[in-house]
Amino acid sequence: MTATLLDGNALAAQIRAEIQPRVASFTARHGRPPGLGIVLVGDNPASEIYVRNKLRAASVVGMRADLERLPESAVIEDVLRVVAGLNASAVHDGLLVQDPLPDAMGPGAARQVFDVIDPAKDVDGFHPVNVGKLVQRRPTLVPGTPLGVIELLERSGIPIAGARAVVIGRSDIVGKPMAMLLMHRDATVTIAHSKTRDLAGLAATADILIAAIGRPGFVTRGFVKPGATVVDVGITSVTDAALVSRLFPAGHPRRDAFERRGSLVVGDVHPEVADVAGALTPVPGGVGPLTVAMLLSNTLHAAEMRTER
Amino acid sequence: MTATLLDGNALAAQIRAEIQPRVASFTARHGRPPGLGIVLVGDNPASEIYVRNKLRAASVVGMRADLERLPESAVIEDVLRVVAGLNASAVHDGLLVQDPLPDAMGPGAARQVFDVIDPAKDVDGFHPVNVGKLVQRRPTLVPGTPLGVIELLERSGIPIAGARAVVIGRSDIVGKPMAMLLMHRDATVTIAHSKTRDLAGLAATADILIAAIGRPGFVTRGFVKPGATVVDVGITSVTDAALVSRLFPAGHPRRDAFERRGSLVVGDVHPEVADVAGALTPVPGGVGPLTVAMLLSNTLHAAEMRTER
Repeated sequence: MTATLLDGNALAAQIRAEIQPRVASFTARHGRPPGLGIVLVGDNPASEIYVRNKLRAASVVGMRADLERLPESAVIEDVLRVVAGLNASAVHDGLLVQDPLPDAMGPGAARQVFDVIDPAKDVDGFHPVNVGKLVQRRPTLVPGTPLGVIELLERSGIPIAGARAVVIGRSDIVGKPMAMLLMHRDATVTIAHSKTRDLAGLAATADILIAAIGRPGFVTRGFVKPGATVVDVGITSVTDAALVSRLFPAGHPRRDAFERRGSLVVGDVHPEVADVAGALTPVPGGVGPLTVAMLLSNTLHAAEMRTER
Repeated sequence: MTATLLDGNALAAQIRAEIQPRVASFTARHGRPPGLGIVLVGDNPASEIYVRNKLRAASVVGMRADLERLPESAVIEDVLRVVAGLNASAVHDGLLVQDPLPDAMGPGAARQVFDVIDPAKDVDGFHPVNVGKLVQRRPTLVPGTPLGVIELLERSGIPIAGARAVVIGRSDIVGKPMAMLLMHRDATVTIAHSKTRDLAGLAATADILIAAIGRPGFVTRGFVKPGATVVDVGITSVTDAALVSRLFPAGHPRRDAFERRGSLVVGDVHPEVADVAGALTPVPGGVGPLTVAMLLSNTLHAAEMRTER
C-alpha cells in the first residue's frame, strides 16, 4: 500500500473545533444559538442514523438542533406545512428535509419540497437559486458533500489549480456541484457517467479522481494513475458475501467484521487502489464525517448571513 | 478542405419558419402576439447591431418587439425601473437587457439587473433560478447560444450521446450552460480554460470541440482530432492586419475583404482547421444566427408557458 489515507474524522473534528467558538460568539451576540431544523419523514433506517448524526454534531458545537418527525403515512402537504413553519421560524437559521421521502409521495415530492425551502436557510444547497449562484460563483449555500471534499483536498495540501480532475457520477447532490467547485478552483474537470466510453482510461488521466456513483468497489486499479488522489464518496451497506470476498481477502479485518455482523459499509473504490493512488479517502471515515461538518458550517454561515447583512 | 460546413443561416431560417406558424397560432388564441422587450443602455456600436438584429428577427416571425432605450448617462435605478415595467407588462412575455451596461455603472451592475428580471420572462436564461433549473435538468429558459449549438448538432445528425466533448471557455453565457446541455444528452464533457495544461492535447481528444473564448484563430490544426466536429462560438471584429494575414493567405477572399473594409469578423477557430475537422461552423454564418433564432424560440416558449399553464 502506497497511498496516504486522508483522515476525514480528524479533519471533521478540526472543522468542528473551528466552528465551536464562532457558534459561541454568535450566541453571545444574538442571545440565541444558530438553529438547525431537520425534517424526517417515515422510518428509513439509514435516514434515522444520518439524522441522529447531524443532530448530535450540531448539539456538540453548541447549536440548537430540532427534529420534526412525520410518520410514513404523511402526505406532501404535511411536509410543506412543516417546512413553512421552519422558514418562518426566528430561531432556525438552517433547515433540511432528509432524503428520501416515502415512495408513496411520488417521484416529484422531494423536488417540490426542496423548492419551497427559503434559499437563505437551505443548508443542503438544493434550491435552484442556490444551484444557480454556485454555477455563477456567487456566495451561496453549497451541498455539504462536495464542499467537504474541497476542504479535504485543500487542507491536505493537494493542488487543485491546474490539476486534471475526473468526477464519476453526475448527481445534483455530488457530481455536478463537485465539478463546479473544482472548476472554480482552476482544475480542468470532466464529468464521467454511465454513458462514458472507456471510463477506466478516462479516469486514469486524472490527478484528482472523485468516485460518486454508489457502486461498491467499482473503481479498480486500472482506473487510477499512479500517485493520483482518489476521493471515495460512495457509501453502500453491503450484505453480499461474494462481493465482500472480491473486495477483501480472507483474513482481512474488514472481511472478518463482515462475517461477524453480516453487513459492511464500503465505498466505490476497490481497496486495491491503495497500492497505486498517492492519496485516498477511506470508507468509512473519509468523506462521510466531512459532509456533516460542512452542514454545521453551512448552518453557521446561514445564521451569520441572515442576521448580520 | 475536408470539413462539412454547418450552415447556421440556413438552419436559423428553418427554425424561424417553424416558429412563425406557432406565433400566428398564439396570436389567434390570445388576441395579441408574443411580445419581447429589449433594454439597450448607452451607445455601444456592437450592441446597436445585435439589438437591431434581434428586434428585426422577432418582427419577421410576427412577434411584438419593443426597444426601451436609456442614455449612456443612465444610472442603474433607471434600468431597474424599466425592467420592473417590463416584468409587470401584460404584453411582454420575454425581456432582456443587452450586455454590456455602461462601465460607469460599475462591475456588478449587469448581475444586479439580471437578478430582478422575472425568471418566467428571462429569455436570456441569466437568472440564477433558471441556471439552477438547467443544472437540475428541469424545464426552463436556457441561454440562446448554447441552445443554438445543440440545435445545430442535433439537426446536422452529429451524435452527442457517448461523444467526448471539450468546451474551451467557462463563461456563464456559453461555456457552463453548453457543458450542461451536452452532458444532459449523455456526452462526456470537459470544460477547458486558461489554466488548463496541454490544452491542445486535451482538445484533440474531443469528438465535439466547442471554442468559446473570444481569441481569434486560437484553435489551430493541432487542437483537432481528424474528423471531429468543431463549433466556433467566437465572434471578434479584428482590425489587426498582421493577425488577418496569419489567418488568411494572400489572395484569400476574406483577406481581400479585410483590405477593403479595414476590419473582419473572425472566430476562435483558425481556418486551417477545415483541413482536419469533419464538420465545422463558419464565422460569420454559423452559431451567430442560431443565437438569435433561439431567442425567438425562448420568447415563444415563455409566452406559451406564461399564458397556458
